[in-house]
Amino acid sequence: VASAEIITVGTELLLGQLVDSNTAEIAVALADAGIDVHYETSVGDNRERVTEAVRIALSRADCAICAGGLGPTVDDLTRDGIAAALERPLELDQAALTELRARFASFGRRMAENNVQQAMLPRGAIVMENPLGTAPGFIVDHGGKIVAAMPGVPRELRLMLKERLIPWLVERFQIRSTLVTRVLKTIGVGESDLDQRIADLFRDSVNPSIAVLAHVGTVDVKMTAKADTRAAAVALLDALEPQLRERLGDVIFAVDRGSIEEVAGECLRRRGWTIATAESCTGGLASAMITSVAGASDYFRGGVIAYGDEAKIAALDVAPDLLDRYGAVSEEVAAALALGAQAAFHATLALSITGIAGPGGGSAEKPVGLVYVALAGPEAKMDVRRLQLPGDREAIQRRAALAALTLLWKATR
Amino acid sequence: VASAEIITVGTELLLGQLVDSNTAEIAVALADAGIDVHYETSVGDNRERVTEAVRIALSRADCAICAGGLGPTVDDLTRDGIAAALERPLELDQAALTELRARFASFGRRMAENNVQQAMLPRGAIVMENPLGTAPGFIVDHGGKIVAAMPGVPRELRLMLKERLIPWLVERFQIRSTLVTRVLKTIGVGESDLDQRIADLFRDSVNPSIAVLAHVGTVDVKMTAKADTRAAAVALLDALEPQLRERLGDVIFAVDRGSIEEVAGECLRRRGWTIATAESCTGGLASAMITSVAGASDYFRGGVIAYGDEAKIAALDVAPDLLDRYGAVSEEVAAALALGAQAAFHATLALSITGIAGPGGGSAEKPVGLVYVALAGPEAKMDVRRLQLPGDREAIQRRAALAALTLLWKATR
Repeated sequence: VASAEIITVGTELLLGQLVDSNTAEIAVALADAGIDVHYETSVGDNRERVTEAVRIALSRADCAICAGGLGPTVDDLTRDGIAAALERPLELDQAALTELRARFASFGRRMAENNVQQAMLPRGAIVMENPLGTAPGFIVDHGGKIVAAMPGVPRELRLMLKERLIPWLVERFQIRSTLVTRVLKTIGVGESDLDQRIADLFRDSVNPSIAVLAHVGTVDVKMTAKADTRAAAVALLDALEPQLRERLGDVIFAVDRGSIEEVAGECLRRRGWTIATAESCTGGLASAMITSVAGASDYFRGGVIAYGDEAKIAALDVAPDLLDRYGAVSEEVAAALALGAQAAFHATLALSITGIAGPGGGSAEKPVGLVYVALAGPEAKMDVRRLQLPGDREAIQRRAALAALTLLWKATR
Repeated sequence: VASAEIITVGTELLLGQLVDSNTAEIAVALADAGIDVHYETSVGDNRERVTEAVRIALSRADCAICAGGLGPTVDDLTRDGIAAALERPLELDQAALTELRARFASFGRRMAENNVQQAMLPRGAIVMENPLGTAPGFIVDHGGKIVAAMPGVPRELRLMLKERLIPWLVERFQIRSTLVTRVLKTIGVGESDLDQRIADLFRDSVNPSIAVLAHVGTVDVKMTAKADTRAAAVALLDALEPQLRERLGDVIFAVDRGSIEEVAGECLRRRGWTIATAESCTGGLASAMITSVAGASDYFRGGVIAYGDEAKIAALDVAPDLLDRYGAVSEEVAAALALGAQAAFHATLALSITGIAGPGGGSAEKPVGLVYVALAGPEAKMDVRRLQLPGDREAIQRRAALAALTLLWKATR
């Protein structure tokens, strides 16, 4: 098995001014290609330390994969550091220079003289084009040890990594085995409940392996299969997935990508239904999530943020009597809010959320985290749920909005 | 000057399943204490590699600061790795064990047998308590070279770092010079405009140094002063701040902490004013930001998300004639929306936002990114701004909401 070390370059990383997300990006790509990573190192914009890091990496691994420090300024020293580690001179690379001039031309900008140094690469380097920026990347095959350098700008790095470096490494190391992952995204079930539902599969399934990753309000179940070919790995995933779906079918809302607001929006569009909202404790968050999806105007009619009782009465026609009798945080008022929004915006469906996000406003009877979500459907259908949500104000608001979107998704899928 | 290396431990870091934010947290604390960091290394849950990383770190620096791998499972190998690097045996530390038992008792949980190994520390270690979790940290002073280990859970690490490790290091290395930072948070001015306003100060001021950090919609100006005492460093900051305020006064909304929604909310509370909203293209985002602040119910009355024309007419009483004549994205409709919300919710002030967030819906005359924000004030005051915002849908929505909150803040401060 080929092995690699990751080296990220940038003084801001060691001052803590920037969190290093490039390492995770590179690590995932290498893992998916079946290349082991045992160490990652960050160094500042310092030639000697880049050299030292590359030397140590090559003493332990087959490849040193560097990110950052390829710009045109005097602080950009990754080229110099790698050249010194490999004891190769930097030379003007005509292919890189041509590429660089073409890039500037395509951006409609004049190339400054100091940009030429971005085309100074260690002798024998293979250029990796950078369609999204000026800094070209490169690979040096140094007697079987590989050093690669990519720009630190995340989107430039991501494209170069995927399109150029990984295919090159797979070819160079004749990697036959491949890892393929598939993520089942779930909502509306806690991590420990989910664990219990799949504990035996989780324990017994080695290939594909299963990992459970919890986020606020959603839990991902990630399957990873290893095989000689992509098709064989996919077949392993296809064999396991039905077993997971048998246990989790009702809570899986997407595979690999897609948010609950995108999935619910797609369901609404498919049915030709429209939606309106009435939010109290979430203050617009559920609506903002729905409308974060491009094209939401096809199904989102509008909403009211009815924070106080007065707003609930005036804007959504909630009977003052209900508020007096049951309080704003109650099943009855949740239902009335949903009906009010459905009528006001002439929507097929309406979601409402009312609760206590805290930190203040709780009582023994109605503690912080108590939330009602309601969905008014066609033909006078009404579904109200009572929830007791954990976490701080931000987490409660987010969980409440997600619970409302889950209710919507379940009614429209 | 004392030097340190950071070592983060966890296989998930090298598989890319987790972005390493602990490094930045530790790096900032060390920089603020005046300790240099030249290298950071991540290793998996592997005893030999932890040992190797600690050995290399101590060969180059005064301190190796480790995070992660202090749990009770067989995968938690940081204690073993450090002990091997220092050639010290692991011994049961009675202070750590007492601390551990007390911690479990305070959580009302029974301590399992495997937790005892969390109290097995390298001989001679100084225990660092962990009030937020079970894993104690520790420090070993190994003939002048320091090794420290902290848990990887970010909130546990943060507290231990600040309360225990940094004070210990400052004392141990007799650090006289101290770094103090102050951040002036600005809004409503672009990074390059801001650069121009302070270019000379930026260039000439060495101590305090000035750094400019851009986020979506806000820009931070960070001053860092170095002096023998905290008071002297603060005096340096106090001397520079008025010069920056002279250039930037109108765009600084907070110092060090506070979001624009918190600051604007505080202004509303102080004046005893209330606010309502009418959002179109932001779909509830501005309202969600306002209500993310605890206690927002003191001043937020409610809002309408008027996504379609019909909703603008029905819920906010916008004259159909205005929509026909000027279109929904216009100065006139922005003003009408704000007046509608002000009236509907009986609020002192009302904000409205209408625009084209994209990716669809733009035209030559009204391109994607065109947004109007309006603020209806007391005594029939009306302030409308026309903006052309850059970025994708998410960025345009966020920038539009921030522009509305900026308008609110400027009118209430």
